[in-house]
This record gives sequence, C-alpha cells and structure tokens, in this order.
Amino acid sequence: MIVTIDEQGLRDGLQTLSLTIPTETKLRWIGQLVDAGVRRIQVASFVNPKRVPQMADAAHLFAQLPNAPNVQFSALVLNEKGVERAIDAGARYLAISLSASDTHSRKNTGMSLGEAKTSFGAMVRLAQSAGVSVRGGIQCAFGCRYEGRIDPNVVLDLAKHHLDLGVDELALADSTGMGNPPQLGDLTAHVVELAGGGPDRRPAVSLHLHNTENKGYANVFAGLQAGVRHFDTAFGGLGGCPFIPTATGNIATEDTVNMLHQSGYNTGIDISKIATLSTEMAQLLGEPLPGLVYKLVSGFNA
Amino acid sequence: MIVTIDEQGLRDGLQTLSLTIPTETKLRWIGQLVDAGVRRIQVASFVNPKRVPQMADAAHLFAQLPNAPNVQFSALVLNEKGVERAIDAGARYLAISLSASDTHSRKNTGMSLGEAKTSFGAMVRLAQSAGVSVRGGIQCAFGCRYEGRIDPNVVLDLAKHHLDLGVDELALADSTGMGNPPQLGDLTAHVVELAGGGPDRRPAVSLHLHNTENKGYANVFAGLQAGVRHFDTAFGGLGGCPFIPTATGNIATEDTVNMLHQSGYNTGIDISKIATLSTEMAQLLGEPLPGLVYKLVSGFNA
Repeated sequence: MIVTIDEQGLRDGLQTLSLTIPTETKLRWIGQLVDAGVRRIQVASFVNPKRVPQMADAAHLFAQLPNAPNVQFSALVLNEKGVERAIDAGARYLAISLSASDTHSRKNTGMSLGEAKTSFGAMVRLAQSAGVSVRGGIQCAFGCRYEGRIDPNVVLDLAKHHLDLGVDELALADSTGMGNPPQLGDLTAHVVELAGGGPDRRPAVSLHLHNTENKGYANVFAGLQAGVRHFDTAFGGLGGCPFIPTATGNIATEDTVNMLHQSGYNTGIDISKIATLSTEMAQLLGEPLPGLVYKLVSGFNA
Repeated sequence: MIVTIDEQGLRDGLQTLSLTIPTETKLRWIGQLVDAGVRRIQVASFVNPKRVPQMADAAHLFAQLPNAPNVQFSALVLNEKGVERAIDAGARYLAISLSASDTHSRKNTGMSLGEAKTSFGAMVRLAQSAGVSVRGGIQCAFGCRYEGRIDPNVVLDLAKHHLDLGVDELALADSTGMGNPPQLGDLTAHVVELAGGGPDRRPAVSLHLHNTENKGYANVFAGLQAGVRHFDTAFGGLGGCPFIPTATGNIATEDTVNMLHQSGYNTGIDISKIATLSTEMAQLLGEPLPGLVYKLVSGFNA
C-alpha cells in the first residue's frame, strides 16, 4: 500500500527559526528531497515578509524550482493577496486553511470562524478560477490551547463546507499536538467517509500532525487505521522551535517513513537521504532536532 | 478502564548512567512516585555490583522501602544467586526474563536460548518455592539488532513455556524499539489469547517498550488494542543513555499516562508530580530527558 508524504520542513519548519536560510540553500535541500524520493514538498508561504522574513523569497524560490514533473510543489497562503502572489509566482497547488477554534481564529487572524469561512471561500474560488489546485485545511481539528477539545461536529461541518467548495484535498491538522489516537482516529474516519470513503477516494484526506506531547506517531497509526494515506511531515521533526521547552515540532519525515515501511507501507522515500539532510540541519543549528531516526542513521552526536 | 503503570526509571533508567545515585535519593524518589499514585515500581536489580555499581545498594534499598501495602516493589534478577539475594532482601515480586534472540542471549549472557530456558526454569522454581511472585519476560520479542525480526513462533513458544511454569505475569519486551504497531499488536494479541484472553485474564500480559525509533507510543496504542492493560515506563523517558545518538530510552511515564488519560483510560497517576521528578532528574544530569510532557508541564528549559 502506498502512503504519500508531504514534506513541510521548508515551510512549517523554517518559518519559526530565528535564522533565515538563503534561497540557494533551500534549493539545494529541495533537490536533496526530490532525490530522496519525496513527491510532495511545501516549499514556501506567500505571507507578509515583514512578519515572516524566512518566507520573503517565496516568489524567487518558485522561479528557480527544479524541473521535476512528478513532484508537486505547494505553497501556503493566508489571504487573497497571497493567492494572487502565489499564482503569479507559478504555484500550481495551494494550501488554504482556517481554524476550527473560533478563539484561535480571532487571536491568529482577527477573524471569527464565520468571517474566516467567507475569506476561505473567496481564496478557494480565486485559486480555482486560475486552474490552481487547492488543499483545504482545518487547523486545531483535534484540540486548541485556548478552547481545549473542539466539538467534532464543528470539524465535520467545516469538512462539508470545504468539500462543497470543491477542494481537491482535505487536510485535518492537529496543530497543537493535543489529539489522542482514539479521538483522532474516530473523527478522521468520519471525515474520510464524508469525503467518499476508502483509500482511493477523491478528494484525499490528509493529516498534519505535531509531536508536541509525544503522540504524533501513535496518531499516524490511528490515521492509517482510519483510512488516511497522506501525511504531512518535516525532516528531522522541524517546526515550532526545537530550542524551547514547549517545542511543537512536526512529526519527522524519516521517523514516519521508517514506521510506515516497517508496517508494510511504501512511500518511495530513502530514509538515509532524509537523515543526511536532518544531520546537516542539526549541525547548522548546533542543536539536535526532535527526530530520533536520523541520529540512529547518521550517528550525529549532539 | 484501568491501566497499570510499572515504573522502571530507578532500575532500567539508572543502570546505564555514569553517575551513581545515593540510596537516600532513590528512597526520596520512590516516595515521590508513591505519592504520585504509582502502584508498581521496579526499584533495583540484584546483579553483580562490579558490573552494575548503580545497583550495588539493592539490598540496602529494599530494607528501607516505605510502608506502602498497596504498592508492589519489584526487582530484576538474572541468575539463581540474584534470586536468593533478592528473596533474602525481602523482595516479593521478581522480574525474570530471557531473550527470544539466540544471538542476543549468547552475547549478553553466554547462554544459548535452550540453556537460558533451563536457567529461567530454575530461577522461577526457586522464587516460587519461597512464595515469591514472578513476572516472566521475553526480551527482544519484536526484533533484535543482531538477528533482525524474530520469528513470532519463537515468541509464542516461549510464552507457552513461561505460562507452563506458572508465571504470575508475562512481559513482552521490545528491548530494541524495533517493533512496529501492526506487528507488535498482532503478536501481542496472540500472546494475550494464549494467556487467557480479555483484559481481566490471569496471568496479565504486560509490554515493556522503548522509544528508540519514535514508535514507542504508537506501540502503546497497538498494545491497548491487543488487550494489554499493563505497561512499563520510566519517568522522563530514562533508560539507555540520553547522551548518545542511539539513545534507547524507555517510553516516558508522564507521556504515556498523558496519552492514556486523554484516550479514556485511568491510571491513578498525577502527571504533574511525575513531571516534577523528571525535571529534577534533568537538572541533576544537566541535560534534557527524552520525554516531552515534563517540559510542557514544568517549563524546564534545556
């Protein structure tokens, strides 16, 4: 059985770092990811460069992406201006999302959930009118630091909303790492059913998981049991900040792929090549990353 | 549903450290664990003090254990001399195990698997003749660094062997962290069936899991689905050495309990009190421990 990995390290991983990675380094890493067999890479976000300077080179980066027809390069966007900039830069796949938590939505975007739905719809239609594919996301689908557990019916309503808008993919994000396996598996199975059921359904349902409370990989297993075959990961477990005690890293690409391969799934990804990249990143940062498998593969000693 | 946690930090956690913890510190930690609601604690191993100086105070420790009738204090033993010393010291619950990997057995103990079975039988009978309870373990049940995947039939045969000897509990150990959720869940379900089936069966089947490859908590979830209600953990994820790249820590008590509570299970354990202990240990070692939840609870900044 095939499982697809969507590499988020260059976007979700880098955006919280204090250092800014040069475009040519990002391009080299993208080349290494493609060479390692990764077929979906989120390379940048088109957001305010004053707020996220690590992503200021988004258009510059898209202009220089390698010619790899079998690789899907995506970008994250937060508003219509971002959609326009991304389309102008040549992006063919956009990640657009809203939060299932009204409080989180208001604090993070200044919009109520209702306003966010309106904005989301406008962004999706703008992308669709340009023939660009859309992945519709639901942040905080399994918990919010402000509101705690999110009512599953809110998530199911948002999933229907996204599907009605004709998104090409539906992404459930455990942005806070608060989801637990039975809860996450149960709600995800319902969303998979909504989206058409079965691993070959269209649109696909994907999971974006964080390992904040060490449940990320258990949630991968629960997601597999719920029928999900698409997972977001970041090499080395980048994401959030590895230097602070509440580090909220993504699940690590190589750790996830290792578990998947051992469990009988095929990803087409070469673990040792991802581990090489994580080792380089750890050396650049001068600190170990949250992932464990790259340490076993490379012998990197923090 | 109740899940029982067997705290291994004082034995599996400390035995690999380069520093030796004074007996009075261990006793204070044991008091904190009891106060946190832990009802099973492996406090020491009766092994050669020249080889494992951290455990040289085993008898001294047993003589000073707190009067806590509802807490089971256990010890690990490797040979008949160890059984005798443990019984003399007043231990009422002994962990005795052998490895499912012949190569690992030969390298670790100098005995073939057949010889180890004979030795195991002699130890179990010696303990039983003194009215002491025995937990019979199978190391490397899900993989071995020398032999790779272990034939599940070897593990099932050893489980039958242990059950025929009348062990009070059967422990499957993923000593290397190589087990993956579907494989571990499948084999464990077979062993649970052998042992009598159902969560209320006697003898209980317990799982001893390491998070070496970041699959430890996914394997907890797989174990729960297989009917297991007893897990070994170590506060902070101690075990193996946190300082080396191939760190092979146990799953962390507080991370496991956190996932269990969120998943609807009851352990009776106060997570914040375990996190306090892990924070103290991290400060003592001057390095963060592998567990993640204590960092969220305590704000400990490595």
